[in-house]
Amino acid sequence: MADGPTLADVGEFALIARIAEIIGETPVPRGDIGVGDDAAVIRLGRDPRVVATTDMLVEGRHFRLDWSSAYDIGRKAAAQNLADIEAMGARPVSLLIGLGAPGSTPLSWAEDFARGLVHEAAAAGAVVSGGDTVQSDLVTVSVTALGSLDGRLPILRLGAAPGDPVFAAGRLGWSAAGLALLERADAGLVTRHGALVDAHRVPCPPYGYGTAVSVAGATAMIDLSDGLLADLGHILEESGVGVDLDSVSWQDAALFAAAADLGAEGLGAAEWGANADRWVLAGGEDHALLFTMRPASPPPPHPLLRRIGTVSATAGLRVDGVLAAPAGFDHFLGTP
Amino acid sequence: MADGPTLADVGEFALIARIAEIIGETPVPRGDIGVGDDAAVIRLGRDPRVVATTDMLVEGRHFRLDWSSAYDIGRKAAAQNLADIEAMGARPVSLLIGLGAPGSTPLSWAEDFARGLVHEAAAAGAVVSGGDTVQSDLVTVSVTALGSLDGRLPILRLGAAPGDPVFAAGRLGWSAAGLALLERADAGLVTRHGALVDAHRVPCPPYGYGTAVSVAGATAMIDLSDGLLADLGHILEESGVGVDLDSVSWQDAALFAAAADLGAEGLGAAEWGANADRWVLAGGEDHALLFTMRPASPPPPHPLLRRIGTVSATAGLRVDGVLAAPAGFDHFLGTP
Repeated sequence: MADGPTLADVGEFALIARIAEIIGETPVPRGDIGVGDDAAVIRLGRDPRVVATTDMLVEGRHFRLDWSSAYDIGRKAAAQNLADIEAMGARPVSLLIGLGAPGSTPLSWAEDFARGLVHEAAAAGAVVSGGDTVQSDLVTVSVTALGSLDGRLPILRLGAAPGDPVFAAGRLGWSAAGLALLERADAGLVTRHGALVDAHRVPCPPYGYGTAVSVAGATAMIDLSDGLLADLGHILEESGVGVDLDSVSWQDAALFAAAADLGAEGLGAAEWGANADRWVLAGGEDHALLFTMRPASPPPPHPLLRRIGTVSATAGLRVDGVLAAPAGFDHFLGTP
Repeated sequence: MADGPTLADVGEFALIARIAEIIGETPVPRGDIGVGDDAAVIRLGRDPRVVATTDMLVEGRHFRLDWSSAYDIGRKAAAQNLADIEAMGARPVSLLIGLGAPGSTPLSWAEDFARGLVHEAAAAGAVVSGGDTVQSDLVTVSVTALGSLDGRLPILRLGAAPGDPVFAAGRLGWSAAGLALLERADAGLVTRHGALVDAHRVPCPPYGYGTAVSVAGATAMIDLSDGLLADLGHILEESGVGVDLDSVSWQDAALFAAAADLGAEGLGAAEWGANADRWVLAGGEDHALLFTMRPASPPPPHPLLRRIGTVSATAGLRVDGVLAAPAGFDHFLGTP
């Protein structure tokens, strides 16, 4: 972390004032009341329904201070919640932030963190509307994202029907590959596969595409946070259907190259490919959007859109015809 | 903590399922989508503005596991955020929860915590709509409360004018007195002053009264979280006014009795009274509502309503004519 005054040096009220300044660099929509009263008042367009989601992130479990800058941690915390709003087919409007940090944390760290939040929110068309700061032994972040449906129905997990094509928009497996590269602690590898490492540090949800998919008539949608198998498993369970996935659809030169560089000596291309598949199927935190459409409805265009499979009346999740058990990350049990 | 399976035994998904069951014991309003999708969809009546606030609470700083039950911690975390919604003159609608806890935490603790949240929300007319659970070394709680203005303007901190009477609705100083009793670690004292200790464990905001005060034409309002001086100081600063407070207004037999029992030997009634005043002026976490009205507008009735002073054109905060410096709690600097 950087030099300069710490949070214990300046105190809570100066910290909040400084964060409010950083938030103030992004204009607050007219008629809104932001940081500085008991609560924020946030306009949702004309729709009297709010779409809301919350996440908590803890140092050492969701991010490492030596792997990620404060700015990137702020961006990632914002992105994963904004992606949940997109996955309902809603428009992100506002973030509320809780920050727990040791008194020894540099003020500049908290400022960079706030900037990351504000900038990522702006990328999704949202603003930071309020928050809370407390002292805590480990850096702990809570983010609540609010969004508006603008009069549309939400896109849930339960509308997928047999015959519906399954699409993914965004990177698949890149975050897990980036994590594997960071864990190897080989600076050369991290540099050579910088795009994957960046994707782990800050996911890149397809902002605006959730709304586009909703308007185009998506039947079910979810945000990819716990890995393709686990998250698609939720759609299958809620919709009472199965799916056939085609692994060719997510073949990716960047993943394959990282798998090859990370592969143990003596392993061949089949093992590398298995590693790349594992990142896509069981890796989390990509925050791509996974959705189904009726066969007659084409999805809106997106540079990272691919069709990965088809919904089936036969229960179960099959990859290239082979039954695959759902596998995701459980925060208390760990990766199965 | 209790026996039985721990969070590490049952895992995150079973924990979430169990909390969803507890939440499900309170009916979710028709048309709402609660726990179980990427985000919740919450109806705000007919008003397309959401009032939103968030707080983070950390074990050892905001609560102690040996002083408060999981149920009480849940109630307190809910109450302090619901009070912020009330202080805007809004109607509490929904809570979103983040819970960080060690894997060794008993499942029954998390269940009791969830019950406390759900029951306190219900007391305010709100529901728990969603949340997130993560593993964390210390129990860490984040609560976001959402409310509706139902077409009214929010009551801010900046509308107080000279001549406006200043009112408080709710207990004053009881939470700080309860904390002082717990810190003395004398079981007899804790029993004898149980009402004060209970007020520290679970504040009792005047639910529904924020809306009533708004309808009656309050000019400024704030939730008492950091002590009367600090919180009233915010209204003075935002409104550009001063205030004259009358200490007789908050004389309270329960506070005086506790101050007497806690007073060092040899101290007299004046010192006990000073202690009681300090709890009212500098103690926090009462979550009473502090507000101003125009002189011609009577406040709505409330059993714990008292007029504590009058807004003045002369800057500064005076108690019985003596200038008092604002003093509140800074989470990084501590109590001044």
